[in-house]
Amino acid sequence: MNIQQAPALQTTAWFNTGKPLSLDQLRGKVVMIEAFQMLCPGCVSHGLPLAERVYSSFSHDDLAVIGLHSVFEHHAVQGTQAALEAFLHEYKFSFPVAMDRPSEQGGIPQTMQAYQMQGTPTLILIDRQGQLRHQHFGLVPELRLGADIMLLIEDSRVTTPTRGLVAPTLDGCDASGCAVDQSS
Amino acid sequence: MNIQQAPALQTTAWFNTGKPLSLDQLRGKVVMIEAFQMLCPGCVSHGLPLAERVYSSFSHDDLAVIGLHSVFEHHAVQGTQAALEAFLHEYKFSFPVAMDRPSEQGGIPQTMQAYQMQGTPTLILIDRQGQLRHQHFGLVPELRLGADIMLLIEDSRVTTPTRGLVAPTLDGCDASGCAVDQSS
Amino acid sequence: MNIQQAPALQTTAWFNTGKPLSLDQLRGKVVMIEAFQMLCPGCVSHGLPLAERVYSSFSHDDLAVIGLHSVFEHHAVQGTQAALEAFLHEYKFSFPVAMDRPSEQGGIPQTMQAYQMQGTPTLILIDRQGQLRHQHFGLVPELRLGADIMLLIEDSRVTTPTRGLVAPTLDGCDASGCAVDQSS
Amino acid sequence: MNIQQAPALQTTAWFNTGKPLSLDQLRGKVVMIEAFQMLCPGCVSHGLPLAERVYSSFSHDDLAVIGLHSVFEHHAVQGTQAALEAFLHEYKFSFPVAMDRPSEQGGIPQTMQAYQMQGTPTLILIDRQGQLRHQHFGLVPELRLGADIMLLIEDSRVTTPTRGLVAPTLDGCDASGCAVDQSS
Repeated sequence: MNIQQAPALQTTAWFNTGKPLSLDQLRGKVVMIEAFQMLCPGCVSHGLPLAERVYSSFSHDDLAVIGLHSVFEHHAVQGTQAALEAFLHEYKFSFPVAMDRPSEQGGIPQTMQAYQMQGTPTLILIDRQGQLRHQHFGLVPELRLGADIMLLIEDSRVTTPTRGLVAPTLDGCDASGCAVDQSS
Repeated sequence: MNIQQAPALQTTAWFNTGKPLSLDQLRGKVVMIEAFQMLCPGCVSHGLPLAERVYSSFSHDDLAVIGLHSVFEHHAVQGTQAALEAFLHEYKFSFPVAMDRPSEQGGIPQTMQAYQMQGTPTLILIDRQGQLRHQHFGLVPELRLGADIMLLIEDSRVTTPTRGLVAPTLDGCDASGCAVDQSS
Repeated sequence: MNIQQAPALQTTAWFNTGKPLSLDQLRGKVVMIEAFQMLCPGCVSHGLPLAERVYSSFSHDDLAVIGLHSVFEHHAVQGTQAALEAFLHEYKFSFPVAMDRPSEQGGIPQTMQAYQMQGTPTLILIDRQGQLRHQHFGLVPELRLGADIMLLIEDSRVTTPTRGLVAPTLDGCDASGCAVDQSS
Repeated sequence: MNIQQAPALQTTAWFNTGKPLSLDQLRGKVVMIEAFQMLCPGCVSHGLPLAERVYSSFSHDDLAVIGLHSVFEHHAVQGTQAALEAFLHEYKFSFPVAMDRPSEQGGIPQTMQAYQMQGTPTLILIDRQGQLRHQHFGLVPELRLGADIMLLIEDSRVTTPTRGLVAPTLDGCDASGCAVDQSS
């Protein structure tokens, strides 16, 4: 994957933040996006707690963390603002979270489509210039993530190729995540 | 607490079972009830996986395991059949699960009221004679639970007093569970 | 395996107890023996912490817990009283621990031989009549152990066959335990 | 603490490496030293597995990982080459490990003294110029370690002050580590 400008976030609501965020507005900071679904077991047990640890470990001047609720299944149950709000209330995550904008025809929401994500959790790193540098579906090793974030925090060059972890091959949900049905 | 007949289950829907279950019908078996809410972090991370391990560890001739979805908050989000069905689908729990019947005025559902539960998760053990023998709110030590279940499986006497674990004092939800607001 | 009298413990030193223990003397109680080596990773991470939890969970009137240091490899390093004493001091286990008596020719110590153990950790349960009822090599599920101990605590009959877990097939040590070299 | 040249390693034996290593020889690479004792519970459960993950996560061209067996108690038991060799054999750590050279009068070994370590585990990071940049006693957050290592891998400047984690205040050993007795 060549380095490219990260697609804009398409969202419908924001939580844990006074006002909506945008990648344009965050230019100059590294941005980590954790795309999740509230009923995805791997997101709840691994992806979101990891995002919370990242949020509390790095300076908010250097790194912005955004949770992105990218609902691609069970829309009626987990796709409402009330559902996400109740989930965030009970789990007490503190970083800003947005709802990915549903597509017209249902199915995969718009930001998830723009990034061609394979499922949830997907962890995305965007550099200070707004370029997409990493995109991982599934479990992320914590040591490697700490290193990758610092590399982007320190980086003022833009020539490093995106180094992705091998994506898991999932059918439905397991402990590591929930995959989009490729046949649909 | 003196030994008393366990109150009947008041339910509105069943999952993972061909037909609704009742305590009368299960007389002769030990029954373990795991009361939970799908948005209760301690239920998702500890209570329900423990119930699944119990379900796969003991003979179904000796022990019945029932999950009871006792929604006392966020009713609109987690109180529907569709919500529970999506949750069970994603988490793949295999034991029978019932929805606790909502009370007329909202708030605490009917079975949860009958057992005077303090919150979720609550683990209940009922002996072969249908008597309530243990009721614990919060985390349950696995060694102790294995021993308590076997004591009831082997027991043909009914004179042992209920031995409860100390219930946690919670306000709202934490990693161990979600408490009913006592001021309401 | 038919039920048989548990072989006597052959030991050379005791720790965490005012005086040496023997199975004869413990007749009337259920006895759990955790055979281990201080350099066996599965013993240190799983077997011994589990034994400590058992020791603190059940009445000492009903159940005696004994750690048995059955050194079958690295004798010079881990086979001395000083080594075991330093290990117990650092790890702070509180249940009584004995050193299994070395055999004349080195190799597998005497109690380990008498029980025909396959490696460490091995967990042994002996009933109130001094009969060997369970013997497991490797990881033991905690729910099942709680149930098995309670079954023996409650049991006054001696007709139940020993129900063993499937023993792991190990070569050397892995996370679950250390196996005796069968070719020796 | 001002940035200073890292003291040389004083060692008596090496394992998992064809020949002894020295900081002089490793100049140009970042070096991580994990000081441990084989009977230190926090070293066995956290420090050494973390060092193994670091060793397998970063390029050996950029980062060298060294385990340093700094025995300051129970010298007779854990202070011999045979003891360390048996330990490394059973636990299967693969990174190079050295024995810290005992001091003339026993007690704290020479490299541990030169770095004024407070106990084990202690994690040390040395930059490409051979300067001591981080020194932590106790548990190290994995995200932070990944970031700190990458910062040194990328760093060609030497002006950043050492940022230490708060050291635990320990008396003897607990789950996080073993402290040197300050009164001695």
